[in-house]
Amino acid sequence: MNQGKGQTMWGGRFAATPSEIMEEINSSLDIDRRMAAEDIAGSRAHADMLAEMGIITEADNEAIQGGLDSVLAELRDGTFPFRRALEDIHMNVEARLKELIGEPAGRLHTARSRNDQVITDFRLWTRTALDGAGSLLAGLQAALVTRADENAGTIMPGFTHLQTAQPVTLGHHLLAYVEMASRDRSRLADCAVRLNESPLGAAALAGTGFPIDRDMTAEALGFARPMANSLDAVASRDFALEALADLSIAATHLSRLAEEIVLWTSPQFGFAALTDAWSTGSSIMPQKRNPDAAELVRAKASLITANYSALQGAIKALPLAYAKDLQDDKRLTFEAFDTFNLCVRAMTGMIETIRFKPDAMRAAAAKGFSTATDLADWLVRELGLPFRDAHHVTGTLVAKAEAKSCDLAELSLAEMQDVNAGITQSVFDVLTVEASASSRTSYGATSPVRVAEQVAQWKQRLRLE
Amino acid sequence: MNQGKGQTMWGGRFAATPSEIMEEINSSLDIDRRMAAEDIAGSRAHADMLAEMGIITEADNEAIQGGLDSVLAELRDGTFPFRRALEDIHMNVEARLKELIGEPAGRLHTARSRNDQVITDFRLWTRTALDGAGSLLAGLQAALVTRADENAGTIMPGFTHLQTAQPVTLGHHLLAYVEMASRDRSRLADCAVRLNESPLGAAALAGTGFPIDRDMTAEALGFARPMANSLDAVASRDFALEALADLSIAATHLSRLAEEIVLWTSPQFGFAALTDAWSTGSSIMPQKRNPDAAELVRAKASLITANYSALQGAIKALPLAYAKDLQDDKRLTFEAFDTFNLCVRAMTGMIETIRFKPDAMRAAAAKGFSTATDLADWLVRELGLPFRDAHHVTGTLVAKAEAKSCDLAELSLAEMQDVNAGITQSVFDVLTVEASASSRTSYGATSPVRVAEQVAQWKQRLRLE
Amino acid sequence: MNQGKGQTMWGGRFAATPSEIMEEINSSLDIDRRMAAEDIAGSRAHADMLAEMGIITEADNEAIQGGLDSVLAELRDGTFPFRRALEDIHMNVEARLKELIGEPAGRLHTARSRNDQVITDFRLWTRTALDGAGSLLAGLQAALVTRADENAGTIMPGFTHLQTAQPVTLGHHLLAYVEMASRDRSRLADCAVRLNESPLGAAALAGTGFPIDRDMTAEALGFARPMANSLDAVASRDFALEALADLSIAATHLSRLAEEIVLWTSPQFGFAALTDAWSTGSSIMPQKRNPDAAELVRAKASLITANYSALQGAIKALPLAYAKDLQDDKRLTFEAFDTFNLCVRAMTGMIETIRFKPDAMRAAAAKGFSTATDLADWLVRELGLPFRDAHHVTGTLVAKAEAKSCDLAELSLAEMQDVNAGITQSVFDVLTVEASASSRTSYGATSPVRVAEQVAQWKQRLRLE
Amino acid sequence: MNQGKGQTMWGGRFAATPSEIMEEINSSLDIDRRMAAEDIAGSRAHADMLAEMGIITEADNEAIQGGLDSVLAELRDGTFPFRRALEDIHMNVEARLKELIGEPAGRLHTARSRNDQVITDFRLWTRTALDGAGSLLAGLQAALVTRADENAGTIMPGFTHLQTAQPVTLGHHLLAYVEMASRDRSRLADCAVRLNESPLGAAALAGTGFPIDRDMTAEALGFARPMANSLDAVASRDFALEALADLSIAATHLSRLAEEIVLWTSPQFGFAALTDAWSTGSSIMPQKRNPDAAELVRAKASLITANYSALQGAIKALPLAYAKDLQDDKRLTFEAFDTFNLCVRAMTGMIETIRFKPDAMRAAAAKGFSTATDLADWLVRELGLPFRDAHHVTGTLVAKAEAKSCDLAELSLAEMQDVNAGITQSVFDVLTVEASASSRTSYGATSPVRVAEQVAQWKQRLRLE
Repeated sequence: MNQGKGQTMWGGRFAATPSEIMEEINSSLDIDRRMAAEDIAGSRAHADMLAEMGIITEADNEAIQGGLDSVLAELRDGTFPFRRALEDIHMNVEARLKELIGEPAGRLHTARSRNDQVITDFRLWTRTALDGAGSLLAGLQAALVTRADENAGTIMPGFTHLQTAQPVTLGHHLLAYVEMASRDRSRLADCAVRLNESPLGAAALAGTGFPIDRDMTAEALGFARPMANSLDAVASRDFALEALADLSIAATHLSRLAEEIVLWTSPQFGFAALTDAWSTGSSIMPQKRNPDAAELVRAKASLITANYSALQGAIKALPLAYAKDLQDDKRLTFEAFDTFNLCVRAMTGMIETIRFKPDAMRAAAAKGFSTATDLADWLVRELGLPFRDAHHVTGTLVAKAEAKSCDLAELSLAEMQDVNAGITQSVFDVLTVEASASSRTSYGATSPVRVAEQVAQWKQRLRLE
Repeated sequence: MNQGKGQTMWGGRFAATPSEIMEEINSSLDIDRRMAAEDIAGSRAHADMLAEMGIITEADNEAIQGGLDSVLAELRDGTFPFRRALEDIHMNVEARLKELIGEPAGRLHTARSRNDQVITDFRLWTRTALDGAGSLLAGLQAALVTRADENAGTIMPGFTHLQTAQPVTLGHHLLAYVEMASRDRSRLADCAVRLNESPLGAAALAGTGFPIDRDMTAEALGFARPMANSLDAVASRDFALEALADLSIAATHLSRLAEEIVLWTSPQFGFAALTDAWSTGSSIMPQKRNPDAAELVRAKASLITANYSALQGAIKALPLAYAKDLQDDKRLTFEAFDTFNLCVRAMTGMIETIRFKPDAMRAAAAKGFSTATDLADWLVRELGLPFRDAHHVTGTLVAKAEAKSCDLAELSLAEMQDVNAGITQSVFDVLTVEASASSRTSYGATSPVRVAEQVAQWKQRLRLE
Repeated sequence: MNQGKGQTMWGGRFAATPSEIMEEINSSLDIDRRMAAEDIAGSRAHADMLAEMGIITEADNEAIQGGLDSVLAELRDGTFPFRRALEDIHMNVEARLKELIGEPAGRLHTARSRNDQVITDFRLWTRTALDGAGSLLAGLQAALVTRADENAGTIMPGFTHLQTAQPVTLGHHLLAYVEMASRDRSRLADCAVRLNESPLGAAALAGTGFPIDRDMTAEALGFARPMANSLDAVASRDFALEALADLSIAATHLSRLAEEIVLWTSPQFGFAALTDAWSTGSSIMPQKRNPDAAELVRAKASLITANYSALQGAIKALPLAYAKDLQDDKRLTFEAFDTFNLCVRAMTGMIETIRFKPDAMRAAAAKGFSTATDLADWLVRELGLPFRDAHHVTGTLVAKAEAKSCDLAELSLAEMQDVNAGITQSVFDVLTVEASASSRTSYGATSPVRVAEQVAQWKQRLRLE
Repeated sequence: MNQGKGQTMWGGRFAATPSEIMEEINSSLDIDRRMAAEDIAGSRAHADMLAEMGIITEADNEAIQGGLDSVLAELRDGTFPFRRALEDIHMNVEARLKELIGEPAGRLHTARSRNDQVITDFRLWTRTALDGAGSLLAGLQAALVTRADENAGTIMPGFTHLQTAQPVTLGHHLLAYVEMASRDRSRLADCAVRLNESPLGAAALAGTGFPIDRDMTAEALGFARPMANSLDAVASRDFALEALADLSIAATHLSRLAEEIVLWTSPQFGFAALTDAWSTGSSIMPQKRNPDAAELVRAKASLITANYSALQGAIKALPLAYAKDLQDDKRLTFEAFDTFNLCVRAMTGMIETIRFKPDAMRAAAAKGFSTATDLADWLVRELGLPFRDAHHVTGTLVAKAEAKSCDLAELSLAEMQDVNAGITQSVFDVLTVEASASSRTSYGATSPVRVAEQVAQWKQRLRLE
């Protein structure tokens, strides 16, 4: 945040005059300067097309292209003279171009308006950002797959309602997040495809009478085609809403994983420990490691969702075409991508380095009669009991074990046969947590062999190894 | 809302005992009864597979299929005995099946859990709902295209900031919403593809040891494939979040169109009138037509967006696998689809019947020097002025006309030449609103010829005519 | 949800005709029938005033009052003939009154409009609802105080970042929620005071020319005064937004407590167990108790917050005065109160009956060198070390104990003196969890004596005992 | 946003190493530096108390106070050496103090923790911010009252559903917003009172064993009392949620007024014109004035509401006491206040300078049979017709006038008597818009005399004149 005249160092700005207030509320340069590269790319494509169609001369185009080279160089080396009074990046670039090349700069804006220029830049930026976020998610998937590979056979409790339900493998648990991230990436990719139409040439809102070639600029900028309706082109922001919703959903998955890290690293669970790099300590309790990064990832899902709501609220009920209400589209979108990308990076770092504690996990998995469903399934499979009856027998045996303060496997065969005479010695083969996990071999199930198959498949898909 | 014991007729229920409070907060039957058909379809597919794989006998399967036929018939003819104490639709169906066929009913739940059963039903329901909402949007598109066809040449003001900017055609304006709805439909379709994987067979959370064939049930239910991770299958709700976000975005477009209807039918605009069927009157002012339906559509975009936020907030930070927090997923999703579909129907009805007032629209378009950009473009095109210089000349001429309280076209050629000597008589060809609109012939622009092309294309795509 | 003509039993309604769609989107009777009592109270007050001011005759007033008695009786005994075609509760009551008493019913609406009538009813309903929600919160406070009293000396780990930080007392922990609920109640009370102004007499939007006495109706309905601006009276809904925000904040506190219950009752914590009444079981694992009610309370905070956002989104940017967008104000508000009240009831029931496990809590508190800050404080207090130096000494001692896998209290005095020669035997007095908790006696701190004081004070405030 | 290693000049940062990512996600200095003054005030009060209670020496306190003077001076004159690696403002100040005064700096943190220090600063900041926002709203009220005073008798159409309903006065309309702002201020004030309790002394979470005097520090910092529960003190953020909700509600009112400005200044309404200072122009259409500031105010209500939702989502379901999820509380709160204050300033500037067009307003008010209810009221009052019958007669007369394309007042007495024989010449006294507005003299109604009374009262309350 830059600081106005009456600003004290610790807070707020005090804009005293109407023009200061107006500049403050109206300027977007601090935000849209991030689209400088896209703005120049759009101008290049537009000028080339204008020259090709004979709307400007080739000489003018050469001057423009050369001038834009210089502007880009200034931006890259940090010498570009930003002027807030010029309100936005587009006017800044245009004004600088005029200083550098004079009159031809004035011809660049032929058959173009700020409205189609801005939305072209914003679509280009978002397209790149969607790619970037998707790549980061692929990196997280790679980290998860690597750790799943190491832990295909690591037993941990599978929870429902945070109560121990059945033993699962840690590899299986981690792969669940790989699946989620896969759909998240697919959503981002769909969004990138859907937005990849060129608004350039829509002009202010109604198109133009100049004989422009919108296909040519669309192709030059990598768009699949020009948008078919100029009012829609300048007024719609559903691509930004879609991107924000996609990030919000993906961040919700990150938040769930972050919650698990907070739980797993708490002393009550003790399933895992974060490294120093991914936790903060206490000067006084050196053994204490606060999972700050995980907590922050957990919280950020709410922030990104709020950015979606904010933009939806701003757009809702706006008549066509452009209204200034739309100005915050970029701030909200940029912030959401920045936040999301940071979260993915932090989560990837945590997953890569987190130290799992298989003994604690296994011990927890063995508690709470977690193989009761295995017993019930055995009764159905081996003795042919209807499922609901098998449940009843199992419940009785669990109650018996609970009364004796022992595990199911610690009941004697005789004790079991008291409840159901058909039970045989082979029942004990399914009552350990390892047997339980290994037995679940249906497609997508938790057994180490299934996990290994999925890991192999994901390594191929992600081109690991 | 159904009513508990202590309920007075005008409000709230008063649940006095723990069990009443618990039933109240825990029961979902009022909501999930809408998935009865999906539940039965899932059970049919599961039982067929169990028989095919030899896990249950063919006789049991026949009994189950016959029993489910009876249950379905009871549901269809309204004689099914719903029991709230059984908590949800799944237990209601299962209990009824047991009453009807006895022991085989108990075998139906083999190798299945309530967790994978519920999420299978919910995915099936949502898949159908996405199709339904998409079809309704296609209907709205058809209505818009029909009215655009009639109004390809109707001139109206194109607004930016709700200020008159340039003349556009009403057909062009309506087609902008056809484009938006097209992307909305594409989002719904993407969501339906992405969710179309079968969770059946994930069991409680870890898969099962029974030799089930998940491909067979997936195929029977029209899913593209089984989900690859059982924890993900029972714990994830991103498909519901995506559906809600898609509806929220589409509803935002409806809200914008609703706002336009409210504005257009206000006496200050007078651009259109709703029929009696789509407005409410006043007993005292018979000419008054309140655009209630449009206002309600405008508001509902906020409600649907809130449903998205509510579900995101409930899921965020939940550890795997299932938690009861997820229970409201169905209520929020069903409500969003109901609301959205009602809005699309209302909007379609309004668009089909709204009476446009071309004279008022044209008169408004002609005000406010709306052809100033046409004049500037003429100066660039005909006299070769740089764009920014052409703007300056135009501004001077507009100021002159404003001072004389006349239109641009009412300035004399001499007055124009005072400002720029090169101006010729042909300038007057571009200064009427019709000339302006007709001149904008770039792809996607507002000229009647372009609108007619788009209309033709949309008629083909929507299979109208 | 009631069901339209074409409704199948498992889903959606299909409204085929414009009038059906319009009725569906426009009718509010299913919602606003809950304001029947308020509607009648408002009409009574209005009629009395009209008679008092001579605007209607005393005979008319008597007829009206008698007729309203009958309507109320019909509503109470369930014989009132609701008619959905009459759209809302107000028209239903008015129409019924006309049937019962004829012409005088027509005079009741003198100097009143549906606009001020509806908003009067809604303010009355919300005022009562705020009181009711506040009372329920007082009940929760009472439950918390009772359990805090029992557990003033029960030691548990105090967490930051879900890592053990310092020993605290369970009583202290529970009282934290009493404080939150106290502010929540204070917010609800403030809202009730602020909304307690009468809109009756604002008529449609501009007031009336009849010589009405708005003070008289305000007083009769328990309002502090009439609202000072008729446009504001019919157009504003900030009281509903405020009520929803207050409920959202209070529900956020409930959600935090619900999260703790989920954690505490998980096997990894084992700090507490819910009774059967407040958990759901598993047919197969009888020892398993799923904290469904707590999970639902945790989720509902998101739903209530979403209701706030939905109403804000609907109101935002509406010009004065009334617009139909406001119709959902009641649905959203009623639902939020219903949901909130149910959550408070469920939480109160859980707190009253939850079984704490002091041994497990104490054992957890003793882990993780939780008295390290007590040691540091001792070094400052007894040896005069600067705080940061004391931290350093403590960190060294903790590291030494960690290396030896022992507690701080298990280090020998000699080992301690190796690190700081000034340490004396008395240091061991502060190293137990009991000593730690008891030593924190600053105002508002965790020591049992402070907790007992707060309990006593709260008992008095809540008029317990 | 500051820029990491791989950052290009136009976008995103690329944090390559874990420590960079961790610093990026974890540091809050860019945000919390705004609380520097509050941090120093809190430290001053704490040190004075420590000395008074004999916990530190008077000499140490003098050194500390002197050192804090220097730090404050450095902050004020911009020479304070901020170091991002020190993470937050609190560590920055503490480290600098140590450089300046050495060992006594280490004693300042006795009996205090970062947790109670941060939340003390944040409460102090918010208290001041609430006052500031309230004062700005008072300024807006003053502007509205001034313009209402000028326009107590200016006739404009009163709208419902954006349809003309009844004539109102512009003064009355503006005063509606004064009422809303009054409740908004009252909410902010309530929040300031409720939050005004001191968390200082809660230490990390459990209080402290040092003999501190929390009343003394509370008083020194202007708090009404110390908070009664240390866990609550460090873990709760409901005061921030309440402040955000209050701002969201107030911003919703601003958004409504902004919408009206957008409508009123559109050519279709033509009710008002913004000055150049409060609109942006077009180089090409000098008469065009885009209401950018109003549009931005309209949009910002959504952003502030989203900040509320974001914080609620982050807090929801957090177990006690502190978790890092809470870190964004300050960013969200600071941003909301900045945005809100800017909106109020912009709105005040617009209201002070907007040029109303009474002729256009009056002309619009006279359209649409806006005095039909006056006619109906006359029939009730003068002829004693029941209200519903009067409505019927009026409807018939309006239909007759509509058929003749004339106003109600242009019907002849004979034509009126055809519909109801009792109508007399005096009916024409109520059929002009001026008569209509003037006749509405009930308390809070729109008549100029009532408006003048309200203006007088508000001038007194706001101490204008």
